[in-house]
Amino acid sequence: IEVTEKDPCYCCRILMKQAVSVKGVWPLPQSFTISSERYPLNPQAFYFAYGKQSAAQEGCSVLDEAFKRYFSLIFPDYISAYSILQFSEDQPFTVQVSVGLDDCDGYPDENSSEQLYTLCLSTGLETFSQLVYQEDFGSYFVNKTEIEDFPRFQFRGILLDTSRHYLPVRAILKTLDAMAFSKFNVFHWHIVDDPSFPYQSRTFPDLSAKGAFHPMTHIYTQSDVRRVISYARMRGIRVLPEFDSPGHTQSWGKGQSDLLTPCYRGSTPSGTFGPVNPALPSTYKFMATLFKEVSSVFPDSYIHLGGDEVNFSCWKSNPDVRAFMQKMGFGTDFTKLEAYYMENIVNITTALNKTSIVWQDVFDYHERIPKDTVLHIWKGDPASYEAELSRITKAGYRVLLAAPWYINHISYGQDWRNYYTVQPLNFSGTEEQKKLVIGGEVCMWGEYVDATNLTPRLWPRASAAAERLWSDEKQTSNVDKAFPRLQDFRCKLLRRGIQAEPLFVGHCKHEYQGV
Amino acid sequence: IEVTEKDPCYCCRILMKQAVSVKGVWPLPQSFTISSERYPLNPQAFYFAYGKQSAAQEGCSVLDEAFKRYFSLIFPDYISAYSILQFSEDQPFTVQVSVGLDDCDGYPDENSSEQLYTLCLSTGLETFSQLVYQEDFGSYFVNKTEIEDFPRFQFRGILLDTSRHYLPVRAILKTLDAMAFSKFNVFHWHIVDDPSFPYQSRTFPDLSAKGAFHPMTHIYTQSDVRRVISYARMRGIRVLPEFDSPGHTQSWGKGQSDLLTPCYRGSTPSGTFGPVNPALPSTYKFMATLFKEVSSVFPDSYIHLGGDEVNFSCWKSNPDVRAFMQKMGFGTDFTKLEAYYMENIVNITTALNKTSIVWQDVFDYHERIPKDTVLHIWKGDPASYEAELSRITKAGYRVLLAAPWYINHISYGQDWRNYYTVQPLNFSGTEEQKKLVIGGEVCMWGEYVDATNLTPRLWPRASAAAERLWSDEKQTSNVDKAFPRLQDFRCKLLRRGIQAEPLFVGHCKHEYQGV
Repeated sequence: IEVTEKDPCYCCRILMKQAVSVKGVWPLPQSFTISSERYPLNPQAFYFAYGKQSAAQEGCSVLDEAFKRYFSLIFPDYISAYSILQFSEDQPFTVQVSVGLDDCDGYPDENSSEQLYTLCLSTGLETFSQLVYQEDFGSYFVNKTEIEDFPRFQFRGILLDTSRHYLPVRAILKTLDAMAFSKFNVFHWHIVDDPSFPYQSRTFPDLSAKGAFHPMTHIYTQSDVRRVISYARMRGIRVLPEFDSPGHTQSWGKGQSDLLTPCYRGSTPSGTFGPVNPALPSTYKFMATLFKEVSSVFPDSYIHLGGDEVNFSCWKSNPDVRAFMQKMGFGTDFTKLEAYYMENIVNITTALNKTSIVWQDVFDYHERIPKDTVLHIWKGDPASYEAELSRITKAGYRVLLAAPWYINHISYGQDWRNYYTVQPLNFSGTEEQKKLVIGGEVCMWGEYVDATNLTPRLWPRASAAAERLWSDEKQTSNVDKAFPRLQDFRCKLLRRGIQAEPLFVGHCKHEYQGV
Repeated sequence: IEVTEKDPCYCCRILMKQAVSVKGVWPLPQSFTISSERYPLNPQAFYFAYGKQSAAQEGCSVLDEAFKRYFSLIFPDYISAYSILQFSEDQPFTVQVSVGLDDCDGYPDENSSEQLYTLCLSTGLETFSQLVYQEDFGSYFVNKTEIEDFPRFQFRGILLDTSRHYLPVRAILKTLDAMAFSKFNVFHWHIVDDPSFPYQSRTFPDLSAKGAFHPMTHIYTQSDVRRVISYARMRGIRVLPEFDSPGHTQSWGKGQSDLLTPCYRGSTPSGTFGPVNPALPSTYKFMATLFKEVSSVFPDSYIHLGGDEVNFSCWKSNPDVRAFMQKMGFGTDFTKLEAYYMENIVNITTALNKTSIVWQDVFDYHERIPKDTVLHIWKGDPASYEAELSRITKAGYRVLLAAPWYINHISYGQDWRNYYTVQPLNFSGTEEQKKLVIGGEVCMWGEYVDATNLTPRLWPRASAAAERLWSDEKQTSNVDKAFPRLQDFRCKLLRRGIQAEPLFVGHCKHEYQGV
């Protein structure tokens, strides 16, 4: 595996003079030539090694770990204790890995050398691992294969929602494993929302102590968060935290008084609360402190600020908010108040050197947002998200498409076909506009999902979107041709311990062995 | 717990002078009075015992096992090794169990004393176990409660389909556990179908050797089947096997030549096969031998013969079948041929002293079927299954309703509400006709289901149907009132190791403890 620097943005050139396959690789590489010539692989005489010209060498944590991990993935039934006793007469088979940049301690990030390094490298190993196959008598083989590969979109994300239901850390790590297998590279952690606030803040510990479902068992400690980020880094996955406001913040109010807007019935407070109170200076002080912490805890250069679905009725009912509106000259236009709030929040994160991602609502209703803000499209059917793609990119903003991949919405049958046939660039706009689509995201909202059903509901349905985001659309336009490849990939997921659900009638070769 | 013989059919009178609850019991007992007076339960001083007047006494396998099982279910975090070291000062709390009939070695069966015995007994223990609750500091309590209970319908089944996907035995056993928790009492084992034939027959071993997905790993051996039946018996659950024919038999043809009809293209065989060949005497000889084996392997007095969705096109194409039609005087009416076939099969099982269940198609298209045959309604929306209920019961046949409970059909949101609000007796007919509805069945067809997603897809959605089939419809007509009870029950399932999916946003008290 060689990673060259031909393309400064992405470029993974995987030259496998000896390489692999039966049904191939998912998602489909950009260019892929497989010959019938095959080589046996013997686990006892198989090595990963750093190429002589590689900038990274032994001791590089990301690569050393990846070598170990992929050895087990390639030879799932290899028992080392047993095999060590045997004398191997095979020729050693060495996969040489070379990278142009030594950046072993960094985090994967957008457009950065880390991405060139970690992303390409781990996807290269993933591709190689998928090319190895096992025959009925247990021998492993790899066909002579030449692959040149790079992702179509730089941002290929999965959103997990840990507020509507708490997800234990092990469920998140399992998802990160499976994400790497499908070449997803961003874990969008929708960590808090109305129902619960599981993030244990250093500066505001009451937020989880009072806002989590349970203050001890249903929280993410700082060490949990570090573990998730580190596990993701090893797999070339960025962790994008979302602290959605001013709406979707009911749980915040439990541990932080005076943050939410008291709603009124007539002239008296009703006892319920609405969105974050945008009329109080204390709100912005609190947010600045919180986001300062969040910015240091999460190393990614992006941060998701939410900004969706703000209900104005509580703001309207509150006399202090109305007075603030007058003072600011907003009249009765509450979108101006919302815009004012979001601008303040975006300015906070900008000052912290972070790029903001916000839901499309912020573009729909606001005017002044920094040009490097990314708009996240989540609403509607193809007609309406295509129009939105057109509008937002015309205004010069970068966009991220989530609308067609709300994978929490389930239906009977092979709905992966819908995720597969999305055409993210099928909107009216110039070539320049199309370049502003930085990628897409599969969203698993948590109303009906927790650790009991997350994995089979996510996989392999999300993998359909993964191929759309990674591969060349022209080469992957036929959903019926994709079907047997995806079935094969689902069996690979199963063999790797991911409880991916079946696509249709049938079985996997390696399931229930020895049961 | 006392089981009396007031009603010869069902009758479980559970008198718990000391008994239990918070959110109560699912499915709802017929009569239920709970007082606020509560008693602490200490696992070290808690016993199940046989009443002095009980016909069954120690050594009764079903009860001895149930006592052990329910002790652990009632005290999930009790570690006996630790507790034995402590001296208990509590008053011992003994649950006395008395039964009117000593039938410890029988199988649960329809209308039989076994049912009175096993069914009532195990449901009584289940009810009691659900009434025990644990407080925050770990203590267990039970409120003084009086319950009188019996099921609304005698047949409360779950169908699993082990042909479209193989389900390992442990997945079936897990389902039997969860069935008992929801008071289901029939496991309808749709064991073979078109895609695979996993049943390893003693007399025709080639059926699975050639017709299973894999001849070693994807089969049910005789010992597997015995294990399932025995595990079910211990939980008061009948095992109803289905060997569906003449359609749905593609996999049978692989191990039994000359069984399926060769299809013709014009005057030559096309190489494909259709339904079982009804024109050959060898067919009936084979079926008689197979069903003789099946009848002895499966002790239940019922057997499911299928009979659904027979496609006539292959029969029509085959000159031998057409010649047989002429000889029999059927003209060109292929429903007569199908009727002829089904009559022969029903006669075979009748001769083996089994009662037949067949899908509704057999009633729709045929004339002469024995009056004790049960028709299984699977088609259509409420309007059409209500009409079918009316028609079939008017003809004097017993029916089983499955149509509204095709739980493999999934949709977004709380579709359990649809299963809950079914009114099985809401069809035009006399009181006598209504009595012919023996029960209902939740069907989990296997096109998109295997061991990866079975449990969260089945539970707690199937539990909604369980309450409809067990409880009084008038007392359980409000779906919103049922919601918190079902949520609570789902948490109980989770604590008992059943990966039941969430109904909506929230968490369970005992989930992720110590994680």
